[in-house]
Amino acid sequence: MKIHPCYQASFYSMLKAPEHQVAGHLASDGKLGPLVDGSGRFYKPLQGGGRGSKELAFYETFSSDTRVPDHIRKFFPVFYGSQLLEASNGSGLCLHLVLQDIVSGCINPSIIDVKIGSRTWYPEASDDYIKKCLEKDARTTTVSLGFRIAGLQLYEGKESGFWKPGRKEVQSFTVDNVRSVMRRFVSSDSSIGNENPDCSFAPSIYGGSAGILEQLLELKAWFEDQTTYHFHSCSLLILFDKESVLKGSTPVAEVKLIDFAHVLEGKGVIDHNFLGGLCSLIKFVSDVLSESKESSIKADEESEKPHNCTNNGNCT
Amino acid sequence: MKIHPCYQASFYSMLKAPEHQVAGHLASDGKLGPLVDGSGRFYKPLQGGGRGSKELAFYETFSSDTRVPDHIRKFFPVFYGSQLLEASNGSGLCLHLVLQDIVSGCINPSIIDVKIGSRTWYPEASDDYIKKCLEKDARTTTVSLGFRIAGLQLYEGKESGFWKPGRKEVQSFTVDNVRSVMRRFVSSDSSIGNENPDCSFAPSIYGGSAGILEQLLELKAWFEDQTTYHFHSCSLLILFDKESVLKGSTPVAEVKLIDFAHVLEGKGVIDHNFLGGLCSLIKFVSDVLSESKESSIKADEESEKPHNCTNNGNCT
Repeated sequence: MKIHPCYQASFYSMLKAPEHQVAGHLASDGKLGPLVDGSGRFYKPLQGGGRGSKELAFYETFSSDTRVPDHIRKFFPVFYGSQLLEASNGSGLCLHLVLQDIVSGCINPSIIDVKIGSRTWYPEASDDYIKKCLEKDARTTTVSLGFRIAGLQLYEGKESGFWKPGRKEVQSFTVDNVRSVMRRFVSSDSSIGNENPDCSFAPSIYGGSAGILEQLLELKAWFEDQTTYHFHSCSLLILFDKESVLKGSTPVAEVKLIDFAHVLEGKGVIDHNFLGGLCSLIKFVSDVLSESKESSIKADEESEKPHNCTNNGNCT
Repeated sequence: MKIHPCYQASFYSMLKAPEHQVAGHLASDGKLGPLVDGSGRFYKPLQGGGRGSKELAFYETFSSDTRVPDHIRKFFPVFYGSQLLEASNGSGLCLHLVLQDIVSGCINPSIIDVKIGSRTWYPEASDDYIKKCLEKDARTTTVSLGFRIAGLQLYEGKESGFWKPGRKEVQSFTVDNVRSVMRRFVSSDSSIGNENPDCSFAPSIYGGSAGILEQLLELKAWFEDQTTYHFHSCSLLILFDKESVLKGSTPVAEVKLIDFAHVLEGKGVIDHNFLGGLCSLIKFVSDVLSESKESSIKADEESEKPHNCTNNGNCT
């Protein structure tokens, strides 16, 4: 294996645990986890139990697969290859995937990590693995919603910083909690005590021709047709830089797929498990968007009423 | 309970086991099963274990649910109420659902009964029930395809009659068998020995503005939005009167949903399990349709070639 030219002391001094990782193993506290170099690259150590080499094989196949349309490729992190690096836990050299750091341009991104599918296992897996997945799937919203939130961080502003609930709290999310998170994600007043957040960013983040909903629909159209890949236990991230939105910049909302250790060949069949979950997520997003449109129409009607008039139109 | 005026000897003499039932319990051989009156009505005895009363409750709710659009109602058998009738197994009076007999206008219909969903169980069911379903789901194409064929009959013509494989054979169908059935369903030369049936009826049965594909897409659009009903273990029938097609009549292809003993409230979430399976079935149907279009274009090109010309266009 060729050692990358970056393999030197100055390069290592730039590497650090990602600031905005919301799920998975963390490199902080001397554990094994991914690293970023601050210049747009994300280094993910190959996972054990064959999962890492499967994920590498997926990236290699996928990045040269000419059947994947260009407009679909943007939903996947750019793959730059693999590289031997000192592992973050000090265990020595370890092969890392070199990927695009998808939040590298963001200052304070809000991110939701959604594990898609009503089933995180696949028939070829061992009975023990299936049993473990089934139990977790039934405990979370995976079976009921066709997806579960695996992690999140919502930026609330300079003073309160991020709301980033712990793994246990996220795993215990109910359907109502998920609905609430999807609303708070696009609200200016998203602090935890607020039971009715304003969803004021829904039109610009979820809506619009470049918004989350349009991107999800684009991805859905591909999943209705593609029969090459089945994405088991894969995560879909939705994210935007809340900091720049709060400062009045035009928001850039993004949808990205990550975690491909359990991608299998589709063998001519669509990934109905992923597609079903994706459609369920789409419904949640479009529900928040329609509610926000309705409430803004109501607010406009209220503001258009002449002053000092009663509801029946008689002015006093 | 009021006894229906039809409850009399002459009415009973008209009742018989349906000729074209392809799955479920059969009333023939003195067993408990549905009956038809030959005038367009189908009498389904309420199943035991509470399933029958749940199905009756579904039909009662659904038939008066104003949220269900008219163009969706056509996918469900018309519900006429319930009626006490002598059970087909001679066990005495038993409450029956009175439904539209969906094949009453057909002479020799070809029918495929597809059980939709990659999961036939629901989280609220007992552990034993879930275990039983899981085993059957994994043994059939339910998990891999998101649906399985539960029964079928394909009319092949006057001489060979119907191909109607037994329950065990149908349950052992592989993905390839399913693909083959979907092709044979719309072929004029569908006899079992033929490995490459012509799919000559695909454009008129699967295709066209009133064909199976358009109907499935119409149903899909509803499932992407409706959050009222979750259809567990429900069957989707696709059917047409092959007899009339063979005679040159304009074919009427139909999609119908049946078996609602396990319909649960959607509680604001789409039925991603049904939708995923439906999308998978749609892909199978559209694949057969595109292949048949491609092969008919090729055939046209072949027939347009001048005689005695070689492939490079030089006439001999």
